[in-house]
Amino acid sequence: MTKKISIAIDAMGGDNSPQKTISGVKLFIERIKGEDYLLNLFGNEELINNELKKQNISKKSINIVHSDSVISDKETPLTAIKNSKNTSMWNCIKSQLISESDISLSAGNTGVLLVISRMILKMMDQVSKPALAGLWPNKTGTNVVLDLGANIECNEENLIDFSELGSALFKSLFPEKKPIVSLLNVGSEEIKGTEELKRAFKKLSELSSDNNFIFKGYIEGDKIMDGNSNVIVTDGFTGNIALKTAEGTAKFITNNLKETLTQNIFTRISLIFSFLALNKFKKKLDPRKYNGAILLGLNGTVVKSHGGTDALGFYHSIDLCYRIVRGGLMTQIKKNLSHLKNDKN
Amino acid sequence: MTKKISIAIDAMGGDNSPQKTISGVKLFIERIKGEDYLLNLFGNEELINNELKKQNISKKSINIVHSDSVISDKETPLTAIKNSKNTSMWNCIKSQLISESDISLSAGNTGVLLVISRMILKMMDQVSKPALAGLWPNKTGTNVVLDLGANIECNEENLIDFSELGSALFKSLFPEKKPIVSLLNVGSEEIKGTEELKRAFKKLSELSSDNNFIFKGYIEGDKIMDGNSNVIVTDGFTGNIALKTAEGTAKFITNNLKETLTQNIFTRISLIFSFLALNKFKKKLDPRKYNGAILLGLNGTVVKSHGGTDALGFYHSIDLCYRIVRGGLMTQIKKNLSHLKNDKN
Repeated sequence: MTKKISIAIDAMGGDNSPQKTISGVKLFIERIKGEDYLLNLFGNEELINNELKKQNISKKSINIVHSDSVISDKETPLTAIKNSKNTSMWNCIKSQLISESDISLSAGNTGVLLVISRMILKMMDQVSKPALAGLWPNKTGTNVVLDLGANIECNEENLIDFSELGSALFKSLFPEKKPIVSLLNVGSEEIKGTEELKRAFKKLSELSSDNNFIFKGYIEGDKIMDGNSNVIVTDGFTGNIALKTAEGTAKFITNNLKETLTQNIFTRISLIFSFLALNKFKKKLDPRKYNGAILLGLNGTVVKSHGGTDALGFYHSIDLCYRIVRGGLMTQIKKNLSHLKNDKN
Repeated sequence: MTKKISIAIDAMGGDNSPQKTISGVKLFIERIKGEDYLLNLFGNEELINNELKKQNISKKSINIVHSDSVISDKETPLTAIKNSKNTSMWNCIKSQLISESDISLSAGNTGVLLVISRMILKMMDQVSKPALAGLWPNKTGTNVVLDLGANIECNEENLIDFSELGSALFKSLFPEKKPIVSLLNVGSEEIKGTEELKRAFKKLSELSSDNNFIFKGYIEGDKIMDGNSNVIVTDGFTGNIALKTAEGTAKFITNNLKETLTQNIFTRISLIFSFLALNKFKKKLDPRKYNGAILLGLNGTVVKSHGGTDALGFYHSIDLCYRIVRGGLMTQIKKNLSHLKNDKN
């Protein structure tokens, strides 16, 4: 880690960039002030400079690294290997390799980001597969769910690695807590689920009790948000479906609520009285607060912001990067994995 | 099919039964009046009679079939095979075999219900695996999602059968619409997903255009409730996780909303103005309206009510049974499967 916390940002990825990304940078600088950090912005220097000027942002903690090209949304992981070199995304990730940055953030093409992150940073020796982790709101705070789609199929070894990686991420964000890990399944009884899950359950139960997390067993989908588990482990197919289904359900309900509360004169009067409380409710559940999926298991950390998010959403991703590095994620991961290795032998 | 629509009800299954189930029966009789039907109630005759008397229910359209024993919630599918004969659940299902009933309903032990339904009714010749289907609210009405957990692992043949079974169910409930079928996946592009999904996608795309449904391709989890697909097909593991995650998310949001709207004097005043509208909102999303998972692919139809639902939830399951039989589900299934068979050859 360099002395200052140093974040590499792909300024060109996602919708409305670099305007959106630079507006996110502005929010970060305004809110974090007093802390020591460096933001390395990757992309078209002229466009970035124009945005910084337009938005009246001081370049005190900003370093611009010019990149000629940008990865398009239409690029597939296959074609990207050929076409991605020296794009803003490529240089943003490579910046960790040459120790200029501690973490990389992009709102660009997800498939390409996963592939080139792995190409550039390489997988850690002890890890069987990398995983994409997300933060979910729950009854008592926030939890980590992984894998959200980096791997369509996973075996027990992958699931155990994800438990260690997810726990390290949770620990870096909430150092005061010992993470409680659960495996997502179709029932809570030991006999339920796939053979991979049963083997992972058995191995996780056998891990020594002084390990980096407490294994709590299986949980079902309706318990993800009840606050009793901090790290929820699943394969990338199931995790992706669960995440998207939760997003769809939340949108369906809040859209219905919006229609309900604006449908007539009485409900609109009611809003005068409930405005502040409903605003707080909205803020608490604002998906932009949880924007940013974290790719774990490589020799470096890459955060993927939603491409369609706005400046506030992008700000939350930058802030997430900052908190992850401050919490010493990479050190925590190494600690977890070495412990696992000892335990495996 | 008997002349009257005849529904077999396990009066003893689920929490607070037979009080709950009989209260559900009462609601059904009150709301359906004028229609021709017969309710065969299975369970302890004395207890059922006492409840009917207590709740002042006429026995005009009710037939009680005494069963000595009840399947406990602790019974596993393995032990149940030995212990379930002549229980209320067993007799309730068997009633279809001896043509006394058109459909069977129970709020009892799910695992046991799945196993003994299959034992008694047997799988249809053309079906590779039975599936558990559920009804979900969406933007424009209701859709069918299957499998919700009858099969942990599914191949392409199963997924194609589920498409035919789910379409038949949708058609029996909404005869005026030609069902639109989608496969649940982690992306909408053809290259996404497991090998089983890709093979199912290919076969469904090749089915002749005069078939019983329109195949729309892949959808992601956030599109389940957007109203553009009527039948969403997935394996039982993924379907179960999606269903439970949606339930958990809905509960999380509505609990937060409840707290928000009762937190102070202003929000409580707001409720005076929004009470009617919020009540309608609550009713629209009430999970009891969607209570009842339908086991498809056997020589008969079995509906599983949530064990923990109340009288209103159980009523909705009885009503669902009635609508399914009235819509000619079994005839529709045979039509779909024979078409599929012709198409396979």
